[in-house]
Amino acid sequence: FLREHVVRLHESELGDLLESITAPQRHALVSLLGDDFDFAALTEVDEVIRLDIIEALPNARIAEALGDLDSDDAVYILEDLDEEDQKEILAALPFTERVRLRRSLDYPEDTAGRRMQTEFVAVPPFWTVGQTIDYMRDEEDLPDSFSQIFVIDPTFKLVGAVALDKILRTKRLVRIEEVMDETRYRIDAEMDQEEAAQLFEQYDLLSAAVVDENERLVGVLTIDDVVDVINEEAEEDIKRLGGVGDEELSDSILSTVRSRFSWLLINLATAILASAVISLFDATIEQMVALAVLMPIVASMGGNAGTQTMTVTVRALATRDLDIYNAGRIIRREASVGLINGVLFAVIIGVVAGYWFSSNGLGGIIAAAMIVNMLAAALAGILLPLLLDKVGADPAIASAVFVTTVTDVVGFFAFLGLAGWWLSLA
Amino acid sequence: FLREHVVRLHESELGDLLESITAPQRHALVSLLGDDFDFAALTEVDEVIRLDIIEALPNARIAEALGDLDSDDAVYILEDLDEEDQKEILAALPFTERVRLRRSLDYPEDTAGRRMQTEFVAVPPFWTVGQTIDYMRDEEDLPDSFSQIFVIDPTFKLVGAVALDKILRTKRLVRIEEVMDETRYRIDAEMDQEEAAQLFEQYDLLSAAVVDENERLVGVLTIDDVVDVINEEAEEDIKRLGGVGDEELSDSILSTVRSRFSWLLINLATAILASAVISLFDATIEQMVALAVLMPIVASMGGNAGTQTMTVTVRALATRDLDIYNAGRIIRREASVGLINGVLFAVIIGVVAGYWFSSNGLGGIIAAAMIVNMLAAALAGILLPLLLDKVGADPAIASAVFVTTVTDVVGFFAFLGLAGWWLSLA
Ligand SMILES: [Mg+2]
Ligand SMILES: [Mg+2]
Ligand SMILES: [Mg+2]
Ligand SMILES: [Mg+2]
Ligand SMILES: [Mg+2]
Ligand SMILES: [Mg+2]
Ligand SMILES: [Mg+2]
Ligand SMILES: [Mg+2]
Ligand SMILES: [Mg+2]
Ligand SMILES: [Mg+2]
Ligand SMILES: [Mg+2]
Ligand SMILES: [Mg+2]
Ligand SMILES: [Mg+2]
Repeated sequence: FLREHVVRLHESELGDLLESITAPQRHALVSLLGDDFDFAALTEVDEVIRLDIIEALPNARIAEALGDLDSDDAVYILEDLDEEDQKEILAALPFTERVRLRRSLDYPEDTAGRRMQTEFVAVPPFWTVGQTIDYMRDEEDLPDSFSQIFVIDPTFKLVGAVALDKILRTKRLVRIEEVMDETRYRIDAEMDQEEAAQLFEQYDLLSAAVVDENERLVGVLTIDDVVDVINEEAEEDIKRLGGVGDEELSDSILSTVRSRFSWLLINLATAILASAVISLFDATIEQMVALAVLMPIVASMGGNAGTQTMTVTVRALATRDLDIYNAGRIIRREASVGLINGVLFAVIIGVVAGYWFSSNGLGGIIAAAMIVNMLAAALAGILLPLLLDKVGADPAIASAVFVTTVTDVVGFFAFLGLAGWWLSLA
Repeated sequence: FLREHVVRLHESELGDLLESITAPQRHALVSLLGDDFDFAALTEVDEVIRLDIIEALPNARIAEALGDLDSDDAVYILEDLDEEDQKEILAALPFTERVRLRRSLDYPEDTAGRRMQTEFVAVPPFWTVGQTIDYMRDEEDLPDSFSQIFVIDPTFKLVGAVALDKILRTKRLVRIEEVMDETRYRIDAEMDQEEAAQLFEQYDLLSAAVVDENERLVGVLTIDDVVDVINEEAEEDIKRLGGVGDEELSDSILSTVRSRFSWLLINLATAILASAVISLFDATIEQMVALAVLMPIVASMGGNAGTQTMTVTVRALATRDLDIYNAGRIIRREASVGLINGVLFAVIIGVVAGYWFSSNGLGGIIAAAMIVNMLAAALAGILLPLLLDKVGADPAIASAVFVTTVTDVVGFFAFLGLAGWWLSLA
């Protein structure tokens, strides 16, 4: 009964099911399903779980199952296996399948070539619409689903594409070359998947031809896989901004500890740096303990203002809304915002601190330090991500730690330094 | 010359162009283009710019242009206008157009009904594939592009759908009802757009039928608009985690100041709360200034560890990888990770602080405080977002401030409290 119910699940539902049960249950389920186990479900689960299932199965069985999948899904499963298993599985596949999968695997990870599907429909430009429809009616070996037909010359060079709705509204006698679009949106197989995703978003594509360095059609990238890329990239940015790496909920405790440890270690180093700044002023603090009470406020406000600017900057870089053409304007804007908010909060905290410790001088000093640190926060929040982007680093990954280091150091330095100078006057 | 070049641009390219020039240049460009100005470009620009352009044009002109757009794009432009303009524009439209747009506008913002397009192809189940193709060849008034054909009964109730590739591979004499799929993936017009996007992702849809409360077909939601929804939602989460609201790069300085001010004000309140905790121990700090130097380290490590857990939790809630079924397991996992990393960093900082201030006692105290705060960070990082989600608040929006408040308060309390107790012993 369970078996029948599970067989009817969509691959993504089966994937969710596999993710929600324990490892022994998973293995039991896979053997229960036997040949009915849909390997496409493996493209919907975390890597740990995929490997756990795959490694329990004999390579011959895997090869047989991969033969039934779309090439992109087969590649998705193959790419995580070790080379030896990969070779054995590929060797067990029929020649054409093997060549297709090898070609995709030869493109670097995170490129369009690695993500593309090698099953597509392509016809010559001189065919008529009628001929094309008849071909599709008779041909057994078509992709499971497709949204456009490509037009190629005898050397497999891409000449154009026709959307299916265009075919359906055209009379049978019209020739394909008369209805095809020149494909402006062809994608180079070496193109980074993130860039390809940008093209899909910008031009509202459902699928796009992938071509090799000789402009020959080698595959098709489809929107459902691009949606996965978009989600992966957004997830990557969110996690990097939050200081976590590529971890998944299904990772083991130890691997999670390890992946978070390094980020926390960097943070410890910067926290010690900030402490070193404070220790420069230990005599000043000894003179006036109120400084120790108030100093985290300056640092914390700077850290938050810097994080705001940095978040906007990192996101704008990711969506390409920020580039060298408008960087100057945005930098001026952020500096102005930082300065204005700095003045506003200087007034508020100045009054609060002045009353709290019944000292106008202390109020004035924390106000001045607040303005300095909010301006520093704005500048660090925009300039550091821009700089990281410029040198080719991912601005999402290191900005957070650099920005808060700047705001901690500047905050403590400005506040305690001004206080020391003021106390020396008195 | 410029004119000819601009007319050939894709709507999204024209949108980018409009965003990159100044307001007077924008108005000049729109009048230069005249009737050739593609209003679809307005769906690709920030709201400020859209309103700036639209409000400079007479309502009659807008009505005329909206008539040529897909209904979803027309609604996208209309929804931001004030009610009076909306009414005037709708009144200037032909009856059927007006009814369609009104219906979409009547659905709440951020629902599938608001985002859907009311242009679609629908045929009765008893038509043959041949009849359907002939209809599409002859009918002038088809949507610009579509990827499936819906099947409806005489009362407009949805009975199924056929993908275009399925039509193309089927013989002319086969009846539509024999090739159609029962549409498992129909979308309720009242469904939140985020939920609809989840369905598209999960089932790899290109488009989906939108039905009203009587199961009648009212529109179609397409993947290109769903991609925009996915991006908006990811952007929303990234910005909320970073403490910024709905601001855009094109917002004015003052509106940016205002939107960031409220977040910073909340942060100021929590920072003052943390300072109040410190001031409880001012006598202790007076006894030993080293405490003031070291205390930010405990708070900062807790803040970062808490942010890590919170980021993973917020993301897992957004992707529905975290739910009541696995919450218990994940909470135990996060607590373990926090405890293990707490112990590791306790050893490191204990040794560093012990050497720095030549005091084993101080080393022991900061180590103990570190363990307490890292555990508190892990628990706050997972429990607060879960709690916010449970009470129906967006976990992305308030988690950051609550989590760092907990880690600041616990960090200062644990470290200074332990130190006070230790100093009172000595
Ligand atoms: Mg898939
Ligand atoms: Mg999943
Ligand atoms: Mg992979
Ligand atoms: Mg990438
Ligand atoms: Mg788009
Ligand atoms: Mg695919
Ligand atoms: Mg990225
Ligand atoms: Mg559009
Ligand atoms: Mg809108
Ligand atoms: Mg929403
Ligand atoms: Mg999917
Ligand atoms: Mg649309
Ligand atoms: Mg959300």
